[in-house]
Amino acid sequence: MHTTDDLIQLALKEDIGPGDITTDHLVAPQTRGQGTIIAKADLIIDGLAVAAKVFQTLDPASLVDARGYRDGDPVATGSTVIQVDGALSALLTGERTALNFLQRLSGIATQTRSWVEEVAGTTVKLVDTRKTTPGWRVLEKYAVRIGGAHNHRMGLYDGVLIKDNHIAACGGIAAAVKKVRQSISHLIKVEVETGTLEAVQEALEAGVDVIMLDNMQMDQIRQAVRIINKRVLVEASGNVTRQQLKALAQTGVDLISIGALTHSAPAVDLSMCIERR
Amino acid sequence: MHTTDDLIQLALKEDIGPGDITTDHLVAPQTRGQGTIIAKADLIIDGLAVAAKVFQTLDPASLVDARGYRDGDPVATGSTVIQVDGALSALLTGERTALNFLQRLSGIATQTRSWVEEVAGTTVKLVDTRKTTPGWRVLEKYAVRIGGAHNHRMGLYDGVLIKDNHIAACGGIAAAVKKVRQSISHLIKVEVETGTLEAVQEALEAGVDVIMLDNMQMDQIRQAVRIINKRVLVEASGNVTRQQLKALAQTGVDLISIGALTHSAPAVDLSMCIERR
Amino acid sequence: MHTTDDLIQLALKEDIGPGDITTDHLVAPQTRGQGTIIAKADLIIDGLAVAAKVFQTLDPASLVDARGYRDGDPVATGSTVIQVDGALSALLTGERTALNFLQRLSGIATQTRSWVEEVAGTTVKLVDTRKTTPGWRVLEKYAVRIGGAHNHRMGLYDGVLIKDNHIAACGGIAAAVKKVRQSISHLIKVEVETGTLEAVQEALEAGVDVIMLDNMQMDQIRQAVRIINKRVLVEASGNVTRQQLKALAQTGVDLISIGALTHSAPAVDLSMCIERR
Amino acid sequence: MHTTDDLIQLALKEDIGPGDITTDHLVAPQTRGQGTIIAKADLIIDGLAVAAKVFQTLDPASLVDARGYRDGDPVATGSTVIQVDGALSALLTGERTALNFLQRLSGIATQTRSWVEEVAGTTVKLVDTRKTTPGWRVLEKYAVRIGGAHNHRMGLYDGVLIKDNHIAACGGIAAAVKKVRQSISHLIKVEVETGTLEAVQEALEAGVDVIMLDNMQMDQIRQAVRIINKRVLVEASGNVTRQQLKALAQTGVDLISIGALTHSAPAVDLSMCIERR
Amino acid sequence: MHTTDDLIQLALKEDIGPGDITTDHLVAPQTRGQGTIIAKADLIIDGLAVAAKVFQTLDPASLVDARGYRDGDPVATGSTVIQVDGALSALLTGERTALNFLQRLSGIATQTRSWVEEVAGTTVKLVDTRKTTPGWRVLEKYAVRIGGAHNHRMGLYDGVLIKDNHIAACGGIAAAVKKVRQSISHLIKVEVETGTLEAVQEALEAGVDVIMLDNMQMDQIRQAVRIINKRVLVEASGNVTRQQLKALAQTGVDLISIGALTHSAPAVDLSMCIERR
Amino acid sequence: MHTTDDLIQLALKEDIGPGDITTDHLVAPQTRGQGTIIAKADLIIDGLAVAAKVFQTLDPASLVDARGYRDGDPVATGSTVIQVDGALSALLTGERTALNFLQRLSGIATQTRSWVEEVAGTTVKLVDTRKTTPGWRVLEKYAVRIGGAHNHRMGLYDGVLIKDNHIAACGGIAAAVKKVRQSISHLIKVEVETGTLEAVQEALEAGVDVIMLDNMQMDQIRQAVRIINKRVLVEASGNVTRQQLKALAQTGVDLISIGALTHSAPAVDLSMCIERR
Repeated sequence: MHTTDDLIQLALKEDIGPGDITTDHLVAPQTRGQGTIIAKADLIIDGLAVAAKVFQTLDPASLVDARGYRDGDPVATGSTVIQVDGALSALLTGERTALNFLQRLSGIATQTRSWVEEVAGTTVKLVDTRKTTPGWRVLEKYAVRIGGAHNHRMGLYDGVLIKDNHIAACGGIAAAVKKVRQSISHLIKVEVETGTLEAVQEALEAGVDVIMLDNMQMDQIRQAVRIINKRVLVEASGNVTRQQLKALAQTGVDLISIGALTHSAPAVDLSMCIERR
Repeated sequence: MHTTDDLIQLALKEDIGPGDITTDHLVAPQTRGQGTIIAKADLIIDGLAVAAKVFQTLDPASLVDARGYRDGDPVATGSTVIQVDGALSALLTGERTALNFLQRLSGIATQTRSWVEEVAGTTVKLVDTRKTTPGWRVLEKYAVRIGGAHNHRMGLYDGVLIKDNHIAACGGIAAAVKKVRQSISHLIKVEVETGTLEAVQEALEAGVDVIMLDNMQMDQIRQAVRIINKRVLVEASGNVTRQQLKALAQTGVDLISIGALTHSAPAVDLSMCIERR
Repeated sequence: MHTTDDLIQLALKEDIGPGDITTDHLVAPQTRGQGTIIAKADLIIDGLAVAAKVFQTLDPASLVDARGYRDGDPVATGSTVIQVDGALSALLTGERTALNFLQRLSGIATQTRSWVEEVAGTTVKLVDTRKTTPGWRVLEKYAVRIGGAHNHRMGLYDGVLIKDNHIAACGGIAAAVKKVRQSISHLIKVEVETGTLEAVQEALEAGVDVIMLDNMQMDQIRQAVRIINKRVLVEASGNVTRQQLKALAQTGVDLISIGALTHSAPAVDLSMCIERR
Repeated sequence: MHTTDDLIQLALKEDIGPGDITTDHLVAPQTRGQGTIIAKADLIIDGLAVAAKVFQTLDPASLVDARGYRDGDPVATGSTVIQVDGALSALLTGERTALNFLQRLSGIATQTRSWVEEVAGTTVKLVDTRKTTPGWRVLEKYAVRIGGAHNHRMGLYDGVLIKDNHIAACGGIAAAVKKVRQSISHLIKVEVETGTLEAVQEALEAGVDVIMLDNMQMDQIRQAVRIINKRVLVEASGNVTRQQLKALAQTGVDLISIGALTHSAPAVDLSMCIERR
Repeated sequence: MHTTDDLIQLALKEDIGPGDITTDHLVAPQTRGQGTIIAKADLIIDGLAVAAKVFQTLDPASLVDARGYRDGDPVATGSTVIQVDGALSALLTGERTALNFLQRLSGIATQTRSWVEEVAGTTVKLVDTRKTTPGWRVLEKYAVRIGGAHNHRMGLYDGVLIKDNHIAACGGIAAAVKKVRQSISHLIKVEVETGTLEAVQEALEAGVDVIMLDNMQMDQIRQAVRIINKRVLVEASGNVTRQQLKALAQTGVDLISIGALTHSAPAVDLSMCIERR
Repeated sequence: MHTTDDLIQLALKEDIGPGDITTDHLVAPQTRGQGTIIAKADLIIDGLAVAAKVFQTLDPASLVDARGYRDGDPVATGSTVIQVDGALSALLTGERTALNFLQRLSGIATQTRSWVEEVAGTTVKLVDTRKTTPGWRVLEKYAVRIGGAHNHRMGLYDGVLIKDNHIAACGGIAAAVKKVRQSISHLIKVEVETGTLEAVQEALEAGVDVIMLDNMQMDQIRQAVRIINKRVLVEASGNVTRQQLKALAQTGVDLISIGALTHSAPAVDLSMCIERR
């Protein structure tokens, strides 16, 4: 929440700097205007509160109406998703920043929704990764939930994920798991990254809570699922493409983590019409 | 510069929060490590200084070596672009943040380079827009230059761009241009957005420095270029796709602005190997 | 805008610190008061919004009435320019900070106005410089506009001004101009500082947009104006005194830049009467 | 100290913004340079550490040499006061900000020194006021000390000064003094502003530590000094001009407070030569 | 004031981080609730405004009613001191932070009150020290006043306290006092720390305003008081326990400073009931 | 880490403000000194890095030597735990802030260690709560670990703890657990607060990971442990006193949470000797 406010401030500062020299010199402060933000493609909307905040930062008296839409709702091409009434100067100055937020966040929500539909009917959960845009972690992880997928840990502080180098530094999975359990809160689970079936076996014996199968082949994944046999959660990971998704879901893994949900979602098109009133 | 440092701080804070509970509990502070960042695709590298700063923030004594590469250099799949020697914990904790910066910035530089090559041999300049990721304006505009394209204004403060609503608020192009010229620095040029040939004519007469042709058809663009006849700069704008680029360049416009350079560049793949030393 | 808010916060912090120990211990929070700010000399008022913000920061419910005055209006000795109704403690605590802003900004506006009147009837524009009080750039440049003069670039980011050392570093004016044009936005003009008529000639040939005549004698300036012959804008610069202003204006230069507009304007006298209500 | 660092950061940000577009595009980062700052008038130097900090912020490896000068030393026209060796780009980008600090601070120190000399041979102390440039309190009060005068309280938190309205709000001087003494630290003295000899008498009886004679005539001041008779400190205040200074000093007051020391000191002229090395 | 707001922000950030994952996922934003904060012991309440600010930060529309209590009032076990009506989520998320502030501040006020009662009937003043919780200086010193004791200086900036090492660095008390008086505001008093009767004598002769008797025995203190004989204020200092308080007060010292007022006050018990409405 | 740096900055700012007026005026910047911090009681030391950072902030060249001690080591009365060599002024100015950190953090570590020893030989884990000093969460939770106890969740973001009001808002434990599991990361466990054996049963059936027994009697606790029968972790909570600790540990609960570990630990005594060198 606070982080998001900081990002909005940062965004406005980097765009406006010492002043919007076009609008400040051409539009009188008291002139009123109305803006409508319109979807230029079918999309899942996300970022409504952020866009509202942009305009209210520039004109605290502006009224922002999302027309009944809530984050996560599908919006059809041509529909108006937001109407803003306020100072014309605030609309002109804030337009681009508001759209930049909406286009990226709705882009993530829209793409996520379509990936999620790909595995509809299975019990697998799609989860995001830490491959988010620096500065946008909270917003992008929220967009993923809005799109229907789930969140992996938010950061390095709310989940233990033991990787190869952690294991190497401790002399084995068992030692690493034991050591970390000594120090962490009892509300945090421990996940271990594995690349071989031997490592899977070792992780099971070490009493981990979740096993990540990293960059394994389909066959290997199926074997791993059989070995693990529902004793702990299983996460498949590693440059997952949309094509593989269905097959991967059918291997019986509980979770599929996908960096592309956040790092490569294309922006969706929204535009804003502004009128003097 | 300052903005970039703020963004790096923000990125590390949102990822590490109160602590990297895996690394902090498993890796002793004095353990040394070496990390190598490797291109997993052919790419134009960008963000070397940012990545270095991430590791140096976590371990001021770490040594970061870009192996002779500079921002803008092409890197072949499999090549090592950065080698870091420092505290193993700093490498493990900083890995994802450094990669998140590199993947996005190199993604923009790489895509920009390929768009630029599309118009090689013409005199047209590709320019970016303000459709950047909020918080990343300076970094993304730098990536565009590194990719070989040019920057439009950095924000609302270093260039005048008069749009429809500005014109409506002033009662015509001539009035708007005259009014804004009164107030701005003599080092700032005035650009006007036009949607019709009449508006182009009006802008010429008003003495603008640059005319933007917004969302015009090819035919209309060619006519506008003929009317303007080199008296002022001409910018073509409006959801330009890569397919149209060549044709657009051949109309004789001076500049083509492309939001997709920054808002929809896919991340390129880089990964990091970390070893205890 | 943000910068100004930061400066107001900074000003209140440095004055109040952990508490106004006189007012906090002597005036009950609920006591109301009325303050009137009165001009003690004929002046051009500037900083009305800043002064209002000071009181509203200390008492968000305070009412600040500028009595019909707007920034740039002349105010006669003895006139009340601002009336504030609010918590008596907020008036007593904020008085000095509000006056410090008003006295300095009105000082700049007042002095600027009188310099501008000196060249009334000519077409020359008086412009400010970057010799502003650190932290006050936006406010002081605004005061200059309010006083009737014009702004040079706001900072190092919104205009190119190539000086001797830049030229030396590039091997000549032509090379420098060509190099910088490659990299900057098409909305930014290029100005070159010249000290001799040869340099003026060189700058013209290099295709600059503006030529600064730095510390030239009157004769030399007249010659330069003749050589340039309206092809580009001409700026006269260099410790300009008020005495020289008229003569300088008559040389035909387009712009005269004057550091003293901001760096040495004396504060004008305003005082505040506060009464309990 | 912290405040000063914040102000330097603010000054560089407002000038550089997203980049020094002249220097960044014309001067290679590795080019070295040397700068010399030269007095263009006889002056008392102040701000040496601030100027050094400006360059070291831009190039941490730069070497700044004050040539044996320390804050408060007189410097003759034409003398070099600072020599900087560092990145040429850092010198070019930082020049104006460093000079802006030096010119204002040395201006205050120089003017203060001359006012102090006016009362040489008397025991009176000249003191500053809270009429400082917002954001600059610590720096300007230091410049006053460097110039040879003394500081009044730094802000509202480190001294009690009871004014008319405080008195009115409490029902008399005696009541106000008693009430505030209850609440403040035993290391803080209490001063009361008086405008009449009756008020002086009342303040004496209330047991104040310092009496301010506000805007009194010479005769009245002499009488007040006689009444007070060394029992407490006496401060003369109110738009003191340099002409009155000597006479005022001879009335026997202990302190003369002068707003003009900080609010209207003209900048002194210093310039910087920069050479590539 | 500002500092306190910063501390509240910091407190909420460190507790909520990227989100209250229990409340955010279980309680709808529009659900209303009512909270009552109840004393679980007899106590002196302090921190009412801080607690209110916590809830109003999370829900600006929440109503906080202190039920007629003001900071410093005694509250009996079982009494409700605050009632909050607002978003249920804001109550659940803010509960712990609000209580953490109230419990610590009321703990200090409560303990201070009981120490003050110990010396009731004497003229001695109990004062606090700089042994406060880092970050809490203003709040804890306010709690001390609320508890009925007095404040020593707020920090290193609003009072001079010359210690052994300062004296050693200057070559004696007389030299140190003279030197510091030259440089400080005339509204600041000078206190010297003494450990022997010789030092007391020396301090008296140096013209200090206050003498601190540091870690002296009762006998020595009595002698010092006799020597000083009301000429300056006397402060007794040094790990004062509650048992010694009465005896110490009867020695005739003016002030007794007690670090334990702030550094070791136990939290008092308050709890909060929250109900959905 | 960042949070801690912010707190150190805040602590120095609130103490030093615009300057340490005693030290700044009495001690020359170049004078060197040596300080030794000595335990005045047997204690468990904690905060060594924080104390070092205080001095290094004031004098980056100061050398801080912890004499072989590490956080968590027992230190005997009279032992020197830290030796600092640096600017005498930095030692004098930083002394109190460094001690304030050390005394509070070592106080927590020392008290925690003694509580932990109380349950030596049992398998129960003592855990802290969120009843920490606002602003100090990370530091105090670290001190608890250093003292030998364990951390509960760091904040509201890294563990789910469902309380009465959450349950009421969702219509029962089962509904609440199901709902929250839908939304949280798979690395986060779910704990439910229970006050009756029926609630314990309900929680077990809802598939929670941890059950908190809140304010139950010993008998009830024993019954609950029997019912739960090792299927999930059991935490005893509610104003636990040191006297009850042993008995509570023998009931078979896995965890005992104790707010007093952080909210009421008395500061331990350390002092600093400073000498000029």
